[in-house]
Amino acid sequence: MPTSSASPSEGTEAMNTLGDVGEFGLIRRVTADRVQPPSTLLGPGDDSAVVAAPDGRVVACTDVLVEGVHFRLDWSAPDQVGRKAAAANLADIAAMGAVPTALLVGLACPRDTPVEALEGLAEGLWAEAASAGVGVVGGDVASGPAIVLSVTALGSLEGRDAVTRAGAQPGDVVALCGRIGWAAAGLDVLHRGFRSPGAVVNAHRVPEPPYAAGPQAAQAGATSMIDVSDGLLADLAHVAEASGVTIDVSTAALAIPPRLAEVASALGVDPLGWLLTGGDDHALVATFPGAAPEGWTVIGGVSAGDPVVLVDGAPHEGTAGWDHFATS
Amino acid sequence: MPTSSASPSEGTEAMNTLGDVGEFGLIRRVTADRVQPPSTLLGPGDDSAVVAAPDGRVVACTDVLVEGVHFRLDWSAPDQVGRKAAAANLADIAAMGAVPTALLVGLACPRDTPVEALEGLAEGLWAEAASAGVGVVGGDVASGPAIVLSVTALGSLEGRDAVTRAGAQPGDVVALCGRIGWAAAGLDVLHRGFRSPGAVVNAHRVPEPPYAAGPQAAQAGATSMIDVSDGLLADLAHVAEASGVTIDVSTAALAIPPRLAEVASALGVDPLGWLLTGGDDHALVATFPGAAPEGWTVIGGVSAGDPVVLVDGAPHEGTAGWDHFATS
Repeated sequence: MPTSSASPSEGTEAMNTLGDVGEFGLIRRVTADRVQPPSTLLGPGDDSAVVAAPDGRVVACTDVLVEGVHFRLDWSAPDQVGRKAAAANLADIAAMGAVPTALLVGLACPRDTPVEALEGLAEGLWAEAASAGVGVVGGDVASGPAIVLSVTALGSLEGRDAVTRAGAQPGDVVALCGRIGWAAAGLDVLHRGFRSPGAVVNAHRVPEPPYAAGPQAAQAGATSMIDVSDGLLADLAHVAEASGVTIDVSTAALAIPPRLAEVASALGVDPLGWLLTGGDDHALVATFPGAAPEGWTVIGGVSAGDPVVLVDGAPHEGTAGWDHFATS
Repeated sequence: MPTSSASPSEGTEAMNTLGDVGEFGLIRRVTADRVQPPSTLLGPGDDSAVVAAPDGRVVACTDVLVEGVHFRLDWSAPDQVGRKAAAANLADIAAMGAVPTALLVGLACPRDTPVEALEGLAEGLWAEAASAGVGVVGGDVASGPAIVLSVTALGSLEGRDAVTRAGAQPGDVVALCGRIGWAAAGLDVLHRGFRSPGAVVNAHRVPEPPYAAGPQAAQAGATSMIDVSDGLLADLAHVAEASGVTIDVSTAALAIPPRLAEVASALGVDPLGWLLTGGDDHALVATFPGAAPEGWTVIGGVSAGDPVVLVDGAPHEGTAGWDHFATS
């Protein structure tokens, strides 16, 4: 129940905006005929949902995406924004070594937001959730000055210990699974006013995190893990700090994909910057006491020392990645 | 990682705003030295949290509060807003007959938001969480054009079935636990430019849901339950619809608290309107096959018939409550 006294819009026009269909009307539209997985014991429509937590624990994370900050609707279609919001959270579940079990969505948006855009958002959320085997089990919609999507993901550790950021040990290898640098290249292209090549622009629009690699790494004995959301060096710095170790990344191990090399050449930039400091691809990076499992690429090592990240044995020049409000 | 190219603010000034301290700086400030309950198996600081789900299921809900829509910072202190956001979600957990186990918080706010206000928000979230025996286990902060708080609450059914909106049976009594009409009276007072009496204004600022009454009702055999967030009649209409029953509310059973009668008299309004259609107090209303348990007041009954809510046997004149974007 709101504090504002704005009256609802008149009901005689077509049902084109959120103000026209109302909160409950929108929720009915985006939840109708959805098929929930067996882990959804009670889906949307009540005060709360109920989700299976088979081993007696639930993994949970929340990530916020804001229009104009994390996405622009002139750069991304609504369903791509929905996919991206879901993916950012599902990757955080994977980074614990867990499998996702459910999503919940808190949405604020202007009353004049087209219903079509909101249905697109919901389609994207559902599509990405379904790709990870889960459903959207609940949420809330409120009016607000811009589109703000706050997604919560739940997950199951399947009886395993959580793989935190704090377990990296001297002697471990550092290994990567998934793409890095692609979303940053796409964002760079978009900022310069281009809309192609699609391969990099779409990487910014919809990340492709390797969800299954999270539980795989946990089973293979990963000592620490994180998803690359702020940039490889920035995120490895969290691992170095939490684990109290030095991490050294070898640029020779970071193969520059030919497509990124082409785009970098066209833009006149060094593609290595995208790989080291670009976020939003949601690759997984983990440490292993021995060899990395199949599908993972060793990109560095862990040693005793100050909790810092080195590149080829030396401090990295330039920013390590994105701190949302950082002063330096 | 954002799409916008706005550069961080300069670091030479005092650390007074979110832009000054940064996302990670704020998170450090609001999570430092917090004591988590035993159900928090892994708290803030990693990709995800891990929370106990002792009976193999987790109850989950999300509720969004927007500055200027659900609260105004000239009417409520930041800690009151935090309490309110937590309470709205904790009440949704209680309304399933569950006990809360954790909160997660997604926050968007302008870069120039004073750190003091955000620390106040966090204090309120923590205070309300602590009052329900849980901790804030995770969340995210992003810049945005207004303060948007999306809170997710988790809970445990302790082995019981969830009490949904769909189980009300003809012959059941309808019973209420907690206050109704107080927050609406407070909002009415604030809209008219007054700041007192404190009893009603504070009811708008910080609800006092009867959390323990949710599991109590479940143990007592409640057949359906909902929390009164949009208004008694509006929320009972959800129960009537989901259960396929007629609900009749007896106004003779709704005692008008003397304080509300005084305020209504001063404002020249009928206090019954607040009780029937006012939201935000987050009382619990449930149906029971026999007598209502101690602490609950019988306010009506359930009968076979169209899925509607009657007042003293007749349709209610006027709006039933708040649909956020409704046309009628």
